[in-house]
Amino acid sequence: MDLKAESLKLHRENNGKLGIVSKVPLNTPYDLSIAYTPGVAQPCLAIKVEDDLSFDLTCRGNMVAVVTDGTRVLGLGDIGPQAAMPVMEGKAVLFKRFGDVDAIPICLGTKDPKKIIETVKLLEPTFAGINLEDISSPKCYDIEDELKEIMDIPVFHDDQHGTAVAVLAGLINALKLTSRQISTAKIVVNGCGAAGSAIGRLLVKAGAENIFMVDLNGVLYRGMANLNRVQQYLSESTNHQMLKGDLYTVAKGADVLIGVSKPGAFDEKVIRSMNTNPIVFALSNPDPEISYHQAISFGARIAATGRSDTPNQVNNVLVFPGIFRGAIDVRARKITDEMKINAAYAISGLVTESELAFDHIIPSAYNPNVAPNVAAAVSRTAVEQGLARKTIDIEKRKNELIEKLNNAIKK
Amino acid sequence: MDLKAESLKLHRENNGKLGIVSKVPLNTPYDLSIAYTPGVAQPCLAIKVEDDLSFDLTCRGNMVAVVTDGTRVLGLGDIGPQAAMPVMEGKAVLFKRFGDVDAIPICLGTKDPKKIIETVKLLEPTFAGINLEDISSPKCYDIEDELKEIMDIPVFHDDQHGTAVAVLAGLINALKLTSRQISTAKIVVNGCGAAGSAIGRLLVKAGAENIFMVDLNGVLYRGMANLNRVQQYLSESTNHQMLKGDLYTVAKGADVLIGVSKPGAFDEKVIRSMNTNPIVFALSNPDPEISYHQAISFGARIAATGRSDTPNQVNNVLVFPGIFRGAIDVRARKITDEMKINAAYAISGLVTESELAFDHIIPSAYNPNVAPNVAAAVSRTAVEQGLARKTIDIEKRKNELIEKLNNAIKK
Repeated sequence: MDLKAESLKLHRENNGKLGIVSKVPLNTPYDLSIAYTPGVAQPCLAIKVEDDLSFDLTCRGNMVAVVTDGTRVLGLGDIGPQAAMPVMEGKAVLFKRFGDVDAIPICLGTKDPKKIIETVKLLEPTFAGINLEDISSPKCYDIEDELKEIMDIPVFHDDQHGTAVAVLAGLINALKLTSRQISTAKIVVNGCGAAGSAIGRLLVKAGAENIFMVDLNGVLYRGMANLNRVQQYLSESTNHQMLKGDLYTVAKGADVLIGVSKPGAFDEKVIRSMNTNPIVFALSNPDPEISYHQAISFGARIAATGRSDTPNQVNNVLVFPGIFRGAIDVRARKITDEMKINAAYAISGLVTESELAFDHIIPSAYNPNVAPNVAAAVSRTAVEQGLARKTIDIEKRKNELIEKLNNAIKK
Repeated sequence: MDLKAESLKLHRENNGKLGIVSKVPLNTPYDLSIAYTPGVAQPCLAIKVEDDLSFDLTCRGNMVAVVTDGTRVLGLGDIGPQAAMPVMEGKAVLFKRFGDVDAIPICLGTKDPKKIIETVKLLEPTFAGINLEDISSPKCYDIEDELKEIMDIPVFHDDQHGTAVAVLAGLINALKLTSRQISTAKIVVNGCGAAGSAIGRLLVKAGAENIFMVDLNGVLYRGMANLNRVQQYLSESTNHQMLKGDLYTVAKGADVLIGVSKPGAFDEKVIRSMNTNPIVFALSNPDPEISYHQAISFGARIAATGRSDTPNQVNNVLVFPGIFRGAIDVRARKITDEMKINAAYAISGLVTESELAFDHIIPSAYNPNVAPNVAAAVSRTAVEQGLARKTIDIEKRKNELIEKLNNAIKK
């Protein structure tokens, strides 16, 4: 049976992928009297006095909503909220599997940004965090920014920032292996949608000073017409030489080429035009801009894709479970750029000196240390930034989580 | 340790009661490729072609939202959405434990009926059903009615209808034991809030013709001032003698007295004024209108409360798991009065002839046949009413569920 048929079978036979469990026994009248009435009145009254106790006394403290309107699902486009459900549900079970976060899919029956914002805000008492997913750009920027403004729990659009953190993590090691500095390396990002724009923004924050963003109309430059507000910001903080032209123009002599565009967007010519020892991340998924092996055969010193069947898988499953784990563990109000950058360094640091190689720049998604280390980096940064509302022993928490994830895998 | 302290400890140590699990393995790249990308595109595309496949191919098909605004939680009143969470979460795990339904608490940060309606409607693509909970009356009537009108999945306000079905179930057997007919028995309902009004309405539909509804201002009669629209309906379909007066006036000679009012509302005088072999349901919870033993000592032939520590526990945990199970199994569009009445008969029918006694009119919540029998009755009624959108073998489904619940208990 092929992958498509297997997937359909899996989804049908299990009626989806996500289920609910009780963490407490419910087998006797006594069990019910403490989990439900009359005992349950006690945690209710405690929370009534102090709202924030709902994070400690209820499932809210570990609960993240994976929210979409279904307008840009995978490479499938605007398929609607019902059809988006398998992806959101998949994301939710990955949250559990890789970060021990309880996540729930929330597929909304509207595409109106105002209604999405209002609805998500009204869900705040139920959740510890909001993972926005597969919402089309540019409205995804306004939705995220507005929600970050009005909500007191972390809001994170994973298509933007999860991808950006994974890219930065891979790039840190790729630059190290090819003896480059992030500040001076010439980096070209092909694609200025949600992912590409977030990569550009995060690289700027991480110290990259020689970036070129390329979209359908060519390289972004200050004053270019028809840019959304994020692209406009990027047009002003990249391409300081004010180059104009297409991918071929700016890729010439580039050290790094990152694709978040479409299958087949990179050819031999563009790879061959780069600097010596070029780094090529072709992240269109599942079909990359150029295959791993082709990129290598055309001269890439280091290549990476989003796929699991070739080396160097740059995938946001390395990122979102740990980011949320770390943020909600210390009850951070926001997920900041500093947290994202430190998360990237935590991921890249998990590849040991002896493992580090051109075909091993990033840890496996199955490395049970990834989310715990990312979480610890995020928690620590939250504390440093004064954004943590809860004090925990971060190192102890990290080790507990490693043990928990290891046990879950053994099952 | 007392119950209150035990409950607080349970909630704190477990970080609430509800957790998420993956129903599918996620341990290898192959697992991920069929549960998530790229395989997941296949169920997405199937649902894109036919929206309703989301019930079969995703967790939506078994997922119910337990929705509240926290305005009338237990006997605690308007404690807000955060403080309502322990109750909603408890309800969710009871759904799983007693009906194998995956339920999720949704506590909304608004009390505005319009916003509640709009928000719940926008959540429709995510859920198979909506259980409204602990929303104050009279706005709960408008919210439920409007949502039933605009949604294509069942909406059920459990404080109203779950209680009403449990009462009817107990009443059927109590009337049988005292050789009475529902059509002629004189029934007094004390309390015309959400639960009392729903009991009155369901008893009318079930054939009771001699009902008196008593609220703070006395017995409802046609033309009485200051009634909400549900009370007005009741004032016209009960009290055909147009009696005026208080509880003492109408309880005189009554066969049945049902309290959904407040602790201590029934005294010796009112019980002694009833007909011979009186039936008294004192359902204020956890503290009833009169205790079971007092009611008996004052002459009640049959008494019932909402408590588990005395006989005849009339509790909606007998009702909502099976009602939703049956409705979503056949994908019923609505939960109708006929389904509720047949659910009540299914519950009362589980007390065998040999078990049936004054102190055993209703099955235990722990009887694993309750939800499966209720569900079968609801599914069957949906089919009869042309409201089922999915064809199943109802008897087979019932037996599967009994086995599943028995296995869950053994764990």
